[in-house]
Amino acid sequence: MEFSEHIKTANVEDVVLKLPFQPPATGTLCVTGHHLLFSDRKEGGIRQLLLLLRNIDAVEKRTTGSSGTIIIKCKDLRILQLDIPGMEECLNIASSIEALSSLDSVTDMYPFFHRPRELSLNDPWGLSSPEQDYAQTERLWDRWRLSKVNSDFSVCPSYPGAVIVPRAVDDDTLIKAARFRQGGRFPVLCYCHQKNSMVIMRSSQPMTGANRKRCREDELLLQAVIDESELGYIIDTRSAHQAHQARMTGGGFESKSCYRSWRRMHRHMERGKVLQESLIKLVEACGDTSHNMDRWLSKLENSKWLTHIHTALSTAGLVAECVERDAHSVLVHGSEGMDTTLLVTSLAQLILDPTSRTLRGFLQLIEKDWVQAGHPFQQRCSRSAHSHARLRQECPSFLLLLDCVWQLWRQFPLALEFSETLLLRLAQDAYASDYGTFLCNNEQERCALGVKENTHCLFQFLLRCKEREQYINPLYEPTELAIWPSVQPQSLQLWTGLFLRWTEYAETMNKAREEIWTIVKEHTERNGTEESTQTSLNHYNTFTVMENFMDELTIL
Amino acid sequence: MEFSEHIKTANVEDVVLKLPFQPPATGTLCVTGHHLLFSDRKEGGIRQLLLLLRNIDAVEKRTTGSSGTIIIKCKDLRILQLDIPGMEECLNIASSIEALSSLDSVTDMYPFFHRPRELSLNDPWGLSSPEQDYAQTERLWDRWRLSKVNSDFSVCPSYPGAVIVPRAVDDDTLIKAARFRQGGRFPVLCYCHQKNSMVIMRSSQPMTGANRKRCREDELLLQAVIDESELGYIIDTRSAHQAHQARMTGGGFESKSCYRSWRRMHRHMERGKVLQESLIKLVEACGDTSHNMDRWLSKLENSKWLTHIHTALSTAGLVAECVERDAHSVLVHGSEGMDTTLLVTSLAQLILDPTSRTLRGFLQLIEKDWVQAGHPFQQRCSRSAHSHARLRQECPSFLLLLDCVWQLWRQFPLALEFSETLLLRLAQDAYASDYGTFLCNNEQERCALGVKENTHCLFQFLLRCKEREQYINPLYEPTELAIWPSVQPQSLQLWTGLFLRWTEYAETMNKAREEIWTIVKEHTERNGTEESTQTSLNHYNTFTVMENFMDELTIL
Repeated sequence: MEFSEHIKTANVEDVVLKLPFQPPATGTLCVTGHHLLFSDRKEGGIRQLLLLLRNIDAVEKRTTGSSGTIIIKCKDLRILQLDIPGMEECLNIASSIEALSSLDSVTDMYPFFHRPRELSLNDPWGLSSPEQDYAQTERLWDRWRLSKVNSDFSVCPSYPGAVIVPRAVDDDTLIKAARFRQGGRFPVLCYCHQKNSMVIMRSSQPMTGANRKRCREDELLLQAVIDESELGYIIDTRSAHQAHQARMTGGGFESKSCYRSWRRMHRHMERGKVLQESLIKLVEACGDTSHNMDRWLSKLENSKWLTHIHTALSTAGLVAECVERDAHSVLVHGSEGMDTTLLVTSLAQLILDPTSRTLRGFLQLIEKDWVQAGHPFQQRCSRSAHSHARLRQECPSFLLLLDCVWQLWRQFPLALEFSETLLLRLAQDAYASDYGTFLCNNEQERCALGVKENTHCLFQFLLRCKEREQYINPLYEPTELAIWPSVQPQSLQLWTGLFLRWTEYAETMNKAREEIWTIVKEHTERNGTEESTQTSLNHYNTFTVMENFMDELTIL
Repeated sequence: MEFSEHIKTANVEDVVLKLPFQPPATGTLCVTGHHLLFSDRKEGGIRQLLLLLRNIDAVEKRTTGSSGTIIIKCKDLRILQLDIPGMEECLNIASSIEALSSLDSVTDMYPFFHRPRELSLNDPWGLSSPEQDYAQTERLWDRWRLSKVNSDFSVCPSYPGAVIVPRAVDDDTLIKAARFRQGGRFPVLCYCHQKNSMVIMRSSQPMTGANRKRCREDELLLQAVIDESELGYIIDTRSAHQAHQARMTGGGFESKSCYRSWRRMHRHMERGKVLQESLIKLVEACGDTSHNMDRWLSKLENSKWLTHIHTALSTAGLVAECVERDAHSVLVHGSEGMDTTLLVTSLAQLILDPTSRTLRGFLQLIEKDWVQAGHPFQQRCSRSAHSHARLRQECPSFLLLLDCVWQLWRQFPLALEFSETLLLRLAQDAYASDYGTFLCNNEQERCALGVKENTHCLFQFLLRCKEREQYINPLYEPTELAIWPSVQPQSLQLWTGLFLRWTEYAETMNKAREEIWTIVKEHTERNGTEESTQTSLNHYNTFTVMENFMDELTIL
């Protein structure tokens, strides 16, 4: 497509940029196909700001007389203001932003154009694959196999081409079981616990419907997971009532009589619109500047965000307890198996599995259990908390995961190899990114659009030496033990690093934290536990102050 | 008195002690005049626990059959349980605890008996005096003088023997002004700002009464504080409505017409019973183990504790702004001038004055503006949050101060030389201590009872080399600038270190924090900015595990 058709005014001089807690700056504003550029040539050097249009969640415009003001609310929760001389220019810029920030076509998005000098499209894409995972996990070989039944995505459109299933079950059985599960998401292996070989599986709900339909193959598949004398647990992320209700619309749950070796437990977790509205309310509360403590606490409570954090961590803790303490295998599902299911299974792995607590291991976990597992990032993250657009399938499931991981990180500041900065970076890139990793809703779509051939991989980029350092927790001390989070409500806190990121408070806190980290890092580096690269610890920032942004522009 | 008359059963064997998050221990319980001792002789060594009876806020007893259970709720918020074989023994122990934990006579209290080998009663007592303060602050000499008009405590029973007042005002004027202020608390100097010589004064309310009485001497005294062309601000810590109401009971406020150079501002702060109930509600909420997030947040909001923190910090910020940014002198008072007044003036000093942010400087501030200034510690801290006794004059003003200081410490982790451990230690010693510092309600009472001659000084003890280290913030980097706290409600948080101190969560957090501090300390020590003593960073704990407690016992 031609971006230029959306750009009636490409440049405006004498624009005033107002950023939170910075003095206003006057300079030139420039709209390109994917960015908003602001350059302020005063004070000797050039100060330039680059904002990915995709990061813009909502635009508000006001015109007064011959000039106008545009307020830009970003998906990373920042709010900035542009005062533009010339009413026409203002309206043109606003309509360009509106159009270009909400392009629907994936191949028009910036990752398909981002070509930094230091990366090549021939670089490896992704960190692992189901094939590699299987090949590297010897303890699986005896009872589990890699199935390529979904290699053309016909059995389950949202699954990757290869999945790990019980060795005793053949591909035909899988195909039939898939027909019995919503969206074809039949039970697959997610995690095998080293200590006792108990597993965590995930799927979508069984389509029993009002007639209590059965599927022998689905029953066989689950039976094959466990030994005869054993007992497995199904953790259903809906309330028992919701699960029963689901039968009216063709869904359902595993009945006791048909799945004799499995016990079902219900843990109600919110999803979809409820979660999205919770995020909107929370962000609204965080932006309230009325300086009224009661109102703030009441709004915080009313948003229910911390309640969702609490439920997610408790449910994950329950799954981890089943596996580690009681030595049972577990199947997790809700309805579609794409949101709360992934949230619970990935948190349980972080609790149980030391490997997933390393930087690479955590990114692999996100890749395996969110990207490849078919969490529909494009649908869920197309809008964030500021948009007034009618919500469709937006839902901050992934943000909730990152917040839960932050809570773990806070409670176990030595147990995770990665830093809060990594979580902030992922929170941001899921909504707007230079990289292709979070594009599309599943592997099938990514293949169809050639995402891996035509974009760069975020995870590979983050692990590069130069980047890596800022995502490392200098205090990391690996532990083989499970890390059991306290889920007392009193011990969970607002993730200020994310939700108060652009407030005065955050300025103070970030400065202090950076000074502390510098001291800690110097210490660990001197102790030789760290590579001794000497870059600074700046928080990652899309709206980067750039010395030279020509690299970014040449491709437009 | 004879403590033995309160001790019918001095020793019980086979008592089971249950502490939060520790396995139960079986051992011998012993009641002495001031302590509860528990010794567990198993596991090779001797494990002994020593609890100051004064630390006990409430006792609950249950008897079942031939044995009984005593639940002890401490003023430091810990709850512990003793299972005692023998119903009579249980009842005896319980009634000993009840009697000995609430002795009214100050000279019967433990500080009058505490004689550790390494301290001598001839050691210096206290860190400074009004005389020394005045002698050391040259910038005062021109316009301020030291008055000993109160040397026999007859002018103001709750003031120290010497105070700093305007040079232009003689002692007769002070005596008359004192008669016009509640409790004789006439306006005195509290702080003089180095940068611009503006001052913070404090007093109690003027006793104008319903007839709008005037006092020429009080007006002269305040007029003498500022130059003719200048303007001073009176920050009244009551609402305008409350101040007007106070006239009905003889109190009042400074009217515009009589105090022409002063502008009055009202900032309503809660006090007395309202604050005490707020603390009780907060502690109850923190102990709620229902695992319901909404309920927790609702209880937290309902306690209003964070609202009080918010108000105190905002008001202190206002005072500091008047002094530093607008260059006005300020007089602070509410009604009695012994609670909110001290809270606001001492927080304003921490914001403005780098000296008060050092370990010694902070302790001097507490000594000068709380102990010597006549905050009635004995009345305010005789009971804490667990007591079911009818409240009289209890009020956690000092705890609120410490919490506000903690909020500053959190927001400026490099600006304060002291650690959170110091704040926890002060919180504890204000309610129950081995030292005499917080005994009595004012200097007059302390003199009458010979506190300084017969007890040891906490502040001197804390500054001893061996102790000092744990109260030092290894990250301290002095700054001459004012530290302006963010008072957005979003930036204030629950002081988990105090209020969740005895929960599972705190166990995890403390462990992590200590490991982090160890790293940071090692770093700073290697950099030579710290004395290189090598004691460990254990949190201070009244219920100390002691190797040898004979020192404590010999004096009983």
